[in-house]
Amino acid sequence: MKWKEEDNTLQATFEFSDFVEAFGFMSQVAIIAEKMNHHPNWSNVYNTVTFHLSTHDAGDVVTEKDLTLSKEISKIFEKYT
Amino acid sequence: MKWKEEDNTLQATFEFSDFVEAFGFMSQVAIIAEKMNHHPNWSNVYNTVTFHLSTHDAGDVVTEKDLTLSKEISKIFEKYT
Amino acid sequence: MKWKEEDNTLQATFEFSDFVEAFGFMSQVAIIAEKMNHHPNWSNVYNTVTFHLSTHDAGDVVTEKDLTLSKEISKIFEKYT
Amino acid sequence: MKWKEEDNTLQATFEFSDFVEAFGFMSQVAIIAEKMNHHPNWSNVYNTVTFHLSTHDAGDVVTEKDLTLSKEISKIFEKYT
Repeated sequence: MKWKEEDNTLQATFEFSDFVEAFGFMSQVAIIAEKMNHHPNWSNVYNTVTFHLSTHDAGDVVTEKDLTLSKEISKIFEKYT
Repeated sequence: MKWKEEDNTLQATFEFSDFVEAFGFMSQVAIIAEKMNHHPNWSNVYNTVTFHLSTHDAGDVVTEKDLTLSKEISKIFEKYT
Repeated sequence: MKWKEEDNTLQATFEFSDFVEAFGFMSQVAIIAEKMNHHPNWSNVYNTVTFHLSTHDAGDVVTEKDLTLSKEISKIFEKYT
Repeated sequence: MKWKEEDNTLQATFEFSDFVEAFGFMSQVAIIAEKMNHHPNWSNVYNTVTFHLSTHDAGDVVTEKDLTLSKEISKIFEKYT
């Protein structure tokens, strides 16, 4: 299991073969996040993308929305492995 | 072999599982195209991306540049299959 | 008015200063299109993006969905001018 | 001046009207970064994009490469204001 809950956020780091691949993944995640109207706190350096998911409207804790988004992100990632 | 030469362009169509995946692929191709400073004539409808590659500066014929770009595009596509 | 209806599609072409800017615009349109679950037939060459909008499920004619998407696209484009 | 040097990184935060606009900007920056072969440490939450630029190969300090990238990023941002 890639995701872990810590400090009231759902966290995971994904690694790609290079920046171009990492950004292809980010583009897919961006579309899904906007569609769910639930946006991640995420960062990227070169081939690595890290997420800290929590729900602002619920007081910055992990909710069902974060679990759903985390599953969608993992599903997108599968294709890149 | 996915690519064929016709009407002085190098053509290929790629199919994905959905629009989100197609656009992830397009984002990667966009980065590579700009890096090569060689931009495709490409179109997209839902899960399909079609290319017509030719070299404007050479009089709109297929050149080495198009061959190189076509190989890069095929390489990016492999991951999505 | 940028859009015109012809051959049962709503058509428009947008021009940018370069490919990078054109692709920034395309990324925004991609997100909006997926969110609306209405995907354009669109093509790009360098700094130009062309749309042919119609509604497949209605028999490939222009519907309210195309009008709405065309307005969203125009709104995104405004920022780039 | 948007950028400041702190902790051996060049830092700036950019704000947009929404996530879609922020991601359009990120797509442009991604293309430029890959072209320069100099990739940012950047993060995004909703309408905000934050950069921490430094040069890994130089021992994680600010170099000319970071200055150049910061200027390119600022130039891309101008269009969105």
